[in-house]
Amino acid sequence: MHKKQVDGSICAPLGFKATGVAADINGKENSKKDLALIWSEVPAVAAGVFTQNIVKAAPIQVTLDVLKKNPILQAVVVNSRNANACTGEQGIKDAKRMCLLTAHALDIPEEWVAVSSTGVIGLPLPMSRIEKGIQAAVQTLSHDGDSDAAIAIMTTDTFSKQFAIQIDIGGTLVTLGGISKGSGMVHPNMATILGFITTDAKISPEALQAALKQGNEKSFNMITVDGDTSTNDMLLILANGLAQNAEIHIDTPEFELFAHALEYVLVFLAKEVARDGEGATKLLEVQIQSAASEEEAKIAARAVCKSLLVKAAIFGCDANWGRILCALGYSGAHFDPSKVNLFIGQVQVMEKGSPLIFDEETALKVLSENEVVIRADLNAGNAQATSWGCDLSYDYVKINGAYRT
Amino acid sequence: MHKKQVDGSICAPLGFKATGVAADINGKENSKKDLALIWSEVPAVAAGVFTQNIVKAAPIQVTLDVLKKNPILQAVVVNSRNANACTGEQGIKDAKRMCLLTAHALDIPEEWVAVSSTGVIGLPLPMSRIEKGIQAAVQTLSHDGDSDAAIAIMTTDTFSKQFAIQIDIGGTLVTLGGISKGSGMVHPNMATILGFITTDAKISPEALQAALKQGNEKSFNMITVDGDTSTNDMLLILANGLAQNAEIHIDTPEFELFAHALEYVLVFLAKEVARDGEGATKLLEVQIQSAASEEEAKIAARAVCKSLLVKAAIFGCDANWGRILCALGYSGAHFDPSKVNLFIGQVQVMEKGSPLIFDEETALKVLSENEVVIRADLNAGNAQATSWGCDLSYDYVKINGAYRT
Repeated sequence: MHKKQVDGSICAPLGFKATGVAADINGKENSKKDLALIWSEVPAVAAGVFTQNIVKAAPIQVTLDVLKKNPILQAVVVNSRNANACTGEQGIKDAKRMCLLTAHALDIPEEWVAVSSTGVIGLPLPMSRIEKGIQAAVQTLSHDGDSDAAIAIMTTDTFSKQFAIQIDIGGTLVTLGGISKGSGMVHPNMATILGFITTDAKISPEALQAALKQGNEKSFNMITVDGDTSTNDMLLILANGLAQNAEIHIDTPEFELFAHALEYVLVFLAKEVARDGEGATKLLEVQIQSAASEEEAKIAARAVCKSLLVKAAIFGCDANWGRILCALGYSGAHFDPSKVNLFIGQVQVMEKGSPLIFDEETALKVLSENEVVIRADLNAGNAQATSWGCDLSYDYVKINGAYRT
Repeated sequence: MHKKQVDGSICAPLGFKATGVAADINGKENSKKDLALIWSEVPAVAAGVFTQNIVKAAPIQVTLDVLKKNPILQAVVVNSRNANACTGEQGIKDAKRMCLLTAHALDIPEEWVAVSSTGVIGLPLPMSRIEKGIQAAVQTLSHDGDSDAAIAIMTTDTFSKQFAIQIDIGGTLVTLGGISKGSGMVHPNMATILGFITTDAKISPEALQAALKQGNEKSFNMITVDGDTSTNDMLLILANGLAQNAEIHIDTPEFELFAHALEYVLVFLAKEVARDGEGATKLLEVQIQSAASEEEAKIAARAVCKSLLVKAAIFGCDANWGRILCALGYSGAHFDPSKVNLFIGQVQVMEKGSPLIFDEETALKVLSENEVVIRADLNAGNAQATSWGCDLSYDYVKINGAYRT
């Protein structure tokens, strides 16, 4: 597939505007942007994947309902600094009111608005400030507001995450763009991960949902920062059809092209989230090869990525392959330990389950890079999977020891 | 049950001797004790539980074989500083040789010796130093060598773990004692947890195995430090019968007494391991009440205990109950979030799923103690479980960032 990265993110596809404003959601009167709005000039086909945690924040419940009624969205309103989770009936009312306020201000039906929140759990939303924020956001929507939106959804993220690409589908140029945030509580199924993707592709609702689901499996569901699955995770996509390609349906070559492009965008954004894990100094990529099944490849990859001992060793530039094999061993994947080949970067550290003498200096060099790749060949089958995470540093503890206060 | 704590540990029951010697196993010529020997004057009925990791260290494989042949042991030889894991055929040979050397030195059959190792993975055992160590150990066996043995099995533990109690079984005084080590890689199923229990009770092999298995489920399998399950976990018990009670058989009141006493010893030792988790400053106890089933109570308790976000909050004395509810939510246990009552110490922080206004100063006081108890009432059934862990501190990262080097 020929794909080309283009500037910007969610405003790169035709007909999308966005913005991010400072709504002072935590009442501390600083100017950090904390409310984002994404808008499509025309109603867009929409799809979403949501947290698997049985404790679901109010905006998750409300947006699930919105999409259940019909898979059409024209706007997404998002706030950071307050998760609107564990807020009972009032939380549901507030989340619905965010949709309503946005709909009124944009003069569109309430059921075409999705809502999303991230931040501290258990505090009521400051609705008067939220209302002012929504008014301000509607006033500032623009075709180059994607950076502001990407910034406004950040919590403890240290940089904003944006990406956009163009591909040719049946002779028509189609654009996909996305923003995401992550940082803490990042784990499969998913985490306080928020991801918002826009595209001007014309695509059926079923095809859009299928492409999002399969792309999510290989991207956001394959990253882990700390093993905690949050109450607020949400990944949404809006497809407004303004590229005017022939509508994409499931099980067609065009679907494969689109799904592949979407996966590419999602993997980029997911890796950025892993790279920016709380306190992270390095991106960790774990490739499992020759596993007995794809599911086993996935659980093995995630077990290594998630192991605190592996993560601390990567932080300390310690080629502690024993911990990697150990994590593979308890992952639940089936393999014969005496057949495993293990590599850290290009340095092979195990051959058929036995440690090799390797050059510690080369290993140290590999481990000192910004990106560390661990590759395990299980020799148990033909399946493979890749997972991403980050190292465990002092700063993770510092950030999470006093987040609420 | 009337039980009384007594001095010492594995030498408290009749007929047991122990020792710990400095065998210089890492070749750094310091005097840290690193080889322990436990000996019963007469052959003892034995039982064990072992790591569920599919990567099993050589001593695990060898001791499993020993116990499979017949459940009798007269000695246990243990080294720290080298796990003899991922060491291939040579590792198996070395583990067997440790049994053989011990048997020869004690003049007992080789099949009555168990072997156990803990420490760095992937390095061959220094057999000549091990051999000298075993000779020295046999020379120094004594009735008050339990402290030395407890010290010799430590790795990054900051204190040794010992406990002993006496109970009356059918008019006969029976003693149980134990030592354990843990620190890093501590997690259900089990971790680099080693535990060695001795008793002078007379008990059938089946009853001993059953009592150990059920006690382990409520103790070592309910502690977690970092979620990593090691290749070397081993919990062994030797019952030499010298108390001369009537032999204990399964499904009798005497069995219940014995099993209860054993569980008491195991819970004490397991909590000590959790308290001494790498870098820990506090013991965390999580009590789940009114769960739908015992299995769900267990997974819920362990999920909270294991959550990095909860652990970091406890370290920072932050009453971040949202993270606790979040961990319950992704644990896999079934419950209605709007029915949950949550307590940190005596401070109730949630009532029926909604946050309460609580006194932050009282909460801070509770969180500043050496032991923090979190109690969640799920209102989903009648089952309960307790899990233990520790907080996540800067020192965990420090210790694990450079363990191998």
